[in-house]
Amino acid sequence: MPNVRLALAQTNPIVGDIKGNMAGILAVVELAAKREADIVVFGEMSATGYPIEDLATRESFILDAELAVRNLASELKSKNLGHIAVVLGHPSMASAQDQTGWAIAHNTASVLLAGEVVGRYAKHHLPNYSVFDEYRTFVSGNDLLTFEHKGLKFSIVICEDIWQAGGPVSELGKANTDVALILNGSPFEIDKDDTRLKLVSELAKKHSCAAAYVNLVGGQDDLVFDGDSIMVDSRARMVARLKQFKTDLVCIDIESKDDLKVVDEHHLTKPNDNWQTWNALVLGLRDYVQKNGFKSVVLGLSGGIDSAICATIASDAIGPENVYGVSMPSIYSSEHSKDDALDLANRRGMNYQVQAIADLVTPFENQLALEGLSVENLQARVRGVILMALSNKDGHLTLTTGNKTELAVGYSTIYGDTVGGYNPLKDVEKTLVWELARWRNEYAKGRGEIEPIPQNSIDKAPSAELRPNQVDQDSLPPYDVLDAILDAYVNRRRSSAEIVGYGFDEAMVNKVLTLVDRSEWKRRQSAIGPKITGMAFGRDRRLPITNKYKG
Amino acid sequence: MPNVRLALAQTNPIVGDIKGNMAGILAVVELAAKREADIVVFGEMSATGYPIEDLATRESFILDAELAVRNLASELKSKNLGHIAVVLGHPSMASAQDQTGWAIAHNTASVLLAGEVVGRYAKHHLPNYSVFDEYRTFVSGNDLLTFEHKGLKFSIVICEDIWQAGGPVSELGKANTDVALILNGSPFEIDKDDTRLKLVSELAKKHSCAAAYVNLVGGQDDLVFDGDSIMVDSRARMVARLKQFKTDLVCIDIESKDDLKVVDEHHLTKPNDNWQTWNALVLGLRDYVQKNGFKSVVLGLSGGIDSAICATIASDAIGPENVYGVSMPSIYSSEHSKDDALDLANRRGMNYQVQAIADLVTPFENQLALEGLSVENLQARVRGVILMALSNKDGHLTLTTGNKTELAVGYSTIYGDTVGGYNPLKDVEKTLVWELARWRNEYAKGRGEIEPIPQNSIDKAPSAELRPNQVDQDSLPPYDVLDAILDAYVNRRRSSAEIVGYGFDEAMVNKVLTLVDRSEWKRRQSAIGPKITGMAFGRDRRLPITNKYKG
Repeated sequence: MPNVRLALAQTNPIVGDIKGNMAGILAVVELAAKREADIVVFGEMSATGYPIEDLATRESFILDAELAVRNLASELKSKNLGHIAVVLGHPSMASAQDQTGWAIAHNTASVLLAGEVVGRYAKHHLPNYSVFDEYRTFVSGNDLLTFEHKGLKFSIVICEDIWQAGGPVSELGKANTDVALILNGSPFEIDKDDTRLKLVSELAKKHSCAAAYVNLVGGQDDLVFDGDSIMVDSRARMVARLKQFKTDLVCIDIESKDDLKVVDEHHLTKPNDNWQTWNALVLGLRDYVQKNGFKSVVLGLSGGIDSAICATIASDAIGPENVYGVSMPSIYSSEHSKDDALDLANRRGMNYQVQAIADLVTPFENQLALEGLSVENLQARVRGVILMALSNKDGHLTLTTGNKTELAVGYSTIYGDTVGGYNPLKDVEKTLVWELARWRNEYAKGRGEIEPIPQNSIDKAPSAELRPNQVDQDSLPPYDVLDAILDAYVNRRRSSAEIVGYGFDEAMVNKVLTLVDRSEWKRRQSAIGPKITGMAFGRDRRLPITNKYKG
Repeated sequence: MPNVRLALAQTNPIVGDIKGNMAGILAVVELAAKREADIVVFGEMSATGYPIEDLATRESFILDAELAVRNLASELKSKNLGHIAVVLGHPSMASAQDQTGWAIAHNTASVLLAGEVVGRYAKHHLPNYSVFDEYRTFVSGNDLLTFEHKGLKFSIVICEDIWQAGGPVSELGKANTDVALILNGSPFEIDKDDTRLKLVSELAKKHSCAAAYVNLVGGQDDLVFDGDSIMVDSRARMVARLKQFKTDLVCIDIESKDDLKVVDEHHLTKPNDNWQTWNALVLGLRDYVQKNGFKSVVLGLSGGIDSAICATIASDAIGPENVYGVSMPSIYSSEHSKDDALDLANRRGMNYQVQAIADLVTPFENQLALEGLSVENLQARVRGVILMALSNKDGHLTLTTGNKTELAVGYSTIYGDTVGGYNPLKDVEKTLVWELARWRNEYAKGRGEIEPIPQNSIDKAPSAELRPNQVDQDSLPPYDVLDAILDAYVNRRRSSAEIVGYGFDEAMVNKVLTLVDRSEWKRRQSAIGPKITGMAFGRDRRLPITNKYKG
């Protein structure tokens, strides 16, 4: 009987940092060698990071990636690691381009052994929906790759190949596959974990093979790869589950396709949804900050829930000592807005300063003779100028804190509260903001820590405080109703007639839908932020600005 | 012998305005009927506007479009126009969705006759490169549609179908096609006109059929459809060419596939490239303004060439009486910057005001203790606040005026000079800005008009004037060198090594490429503007923000 030790390697590559990623891969193989692994499998595009977008259309990038893979094979051999089969993902030049000349590369997995690239698989199903544009950037492959190592037959497929019917994956059984190696770059979405497990289990049963599902981990712009790699045997029993939101390496001994034993410490259960969502937001922010060379963030603290939760996410991500909160009260700001902002900063020990805006706003009002909405927007924009000045001065990344609901209906001042390079709440609707705030406080309490978010920020009626006694519900429906309408319109693409049919007031539905459509130009200029749902604003939802459709 | 009068109808639909577009189509058919046309052909997606992006994934949108097409057929009959065959473009529900459930519709052309939809063609080749995402939004069709009308055989294909090999277009000859009807939504690019004519001519020769190439006209967000529809006979002789940048209707009498005669006034030659580019910029701006319900624009006038040319484009597009120029001098502004701005406004009679920024800037400087780059950016941001306040106050669309070269290297202050909903120069590199300015003045001279752009704005060394005696070339290479490097890197996707190989200084190349890469986050938040080249910033070039690749 064979006994093959398979290592699942969940790494956090940086897009474009081929040298750094390859050094990381080498270090992981060395670690796996110490644990006596016979084969190590990495995630999709682990050599280059993922998604590489139009970098895939640059010849130099593809050639650099290919060279790095060949060099790794040599280096492994020279370090006496040539006996370990290493499976990793990278782009490679396709033998034929698509007709337009844009797609020149395959999305590839290579098998390295004995100093050589001994096998290659090119992804067949190219996702071209949601945030993915792979039909734009890659040429499709057609053939399953099966190779034997230490008496077991391994076959390779990549990510989308198991989400669609047909293609190489249907050959797994015919190829007498013992273990399917599935390389993935699968971003976090609430509830997606269960879908992945189901897919992998069905694949194992259907083709009677064990299956190793290896995902990437880490934030890349608006995506958060959550890891959570899994191994199932040919009877679809889960054998191992890797950490979520962390790099990880787990070895599994394979006697046969239905006799697997995990070597390393591991877990088979997962924390609850709010824990997962919170950690996705934290990892997304941390990696954006670190991978782009920032050390600190600056954001406005209004005393409201959005800025409070953003500051807490940032504190969890990079430490409160690297978070710079700025209270920017106006003549309309309530006392509690200042008190709550200070309370928030003190709870975790963030940096805090007050910059009153009255003396900055008045000269504009006078010189330009402004009144009404222009003055409301002016206040927000003066705050934006302050935050960007502090960012320029001290090198902070500016965070903008508008939640998904605000972004949907355009309840924000462009170039005002929208300024910033990253928005932690971009895909978090208002009702979920409150839920996460309550959860985070409970979580702290359960660990004997100070609750990070002032209860008053959770409890009070939301207000932009841009005029006296203003509250959000002066101009918007209650947030639970608003989020339900938005879920139907934005996430589920329902028509106004259908949404009215669900029982919502027709005038309210029409008002909300009009607000959403009219705000498209603002969303186009908005900061990126982590996708956590099946339909995030940004590349996940592409609508014209000039658009008169009502329906 | 048959004698069929074919009308090519070049219309300017608004995306999503199904009702308005259908009313426009009906009016054109009525006009064609007066000219005794037997068949009228419209452009791609003429019923809904184009591109509809993710509207194609909304069931209600597709069903509304289909219903509107059926209603048009009935209405034509009820108006005794049922004898005219009408060919128009619209989305229709596909019988099977793609596996992801995103693409549910075909990109369709329907033939209306005698009150019915008598034939349908679904686009086969779905462009999914450059600005197009049709593999995301549409299900591909496979079968050529050929129908007989008044003794001639007409076959339908759509746009990309003639740009790629294979598919229904290859059946044109076998179907004994007399006239190929090609419905297009083909955006303007400099030099593209010649490519189109060549393609259509080759198609006609290869399949021995006449060919009617009907394009849309009008601006839609970042695209400008230039019309320029063409008719060739089966020997590839051009018979008619419709107007560029204007709606048009031209009738052609067809005796046989090689015996065609144009009925209406028309032309066969085209104006020069600068005229075309200028008119693309004018139409793009005019349609963005009008289709989005604006009446006027506001922009900063610095006395420099970029704002001068933008104001002139705007004056040509919507009239100088609807253009509001604002001079916003700082303590660093030269006298000529103020004089040249005023001179510009006076030449065409634009609205003009001066808003000095010193009294608005100083309070920020003092309160935040700013110096150096922070102060430079502060000045630009104060100007942004002024323009947006005037926009909010008076309902103007704010124009931002950064050219493609600036956008490439990030030579701008985000939330400062970048504020605005539309950027006429987004795809116009600096060297072309100058060329167009000279051309526009010559053009005016040739027509006995006042040259709109002050010569001094063309001649002086470009400067941001954010500190004393600053000129752009303090921090950037000469613009002709810079544009050449950018052309290689951005437009032609060459590597740094290749660009150095062309003879550019290595340190300069590396500096420029680094600037381009580092500015990606700014470009993501930038205003849209009209695409006029093969590689515009925006959806034409999709690169990660987090990206460490150097090569």
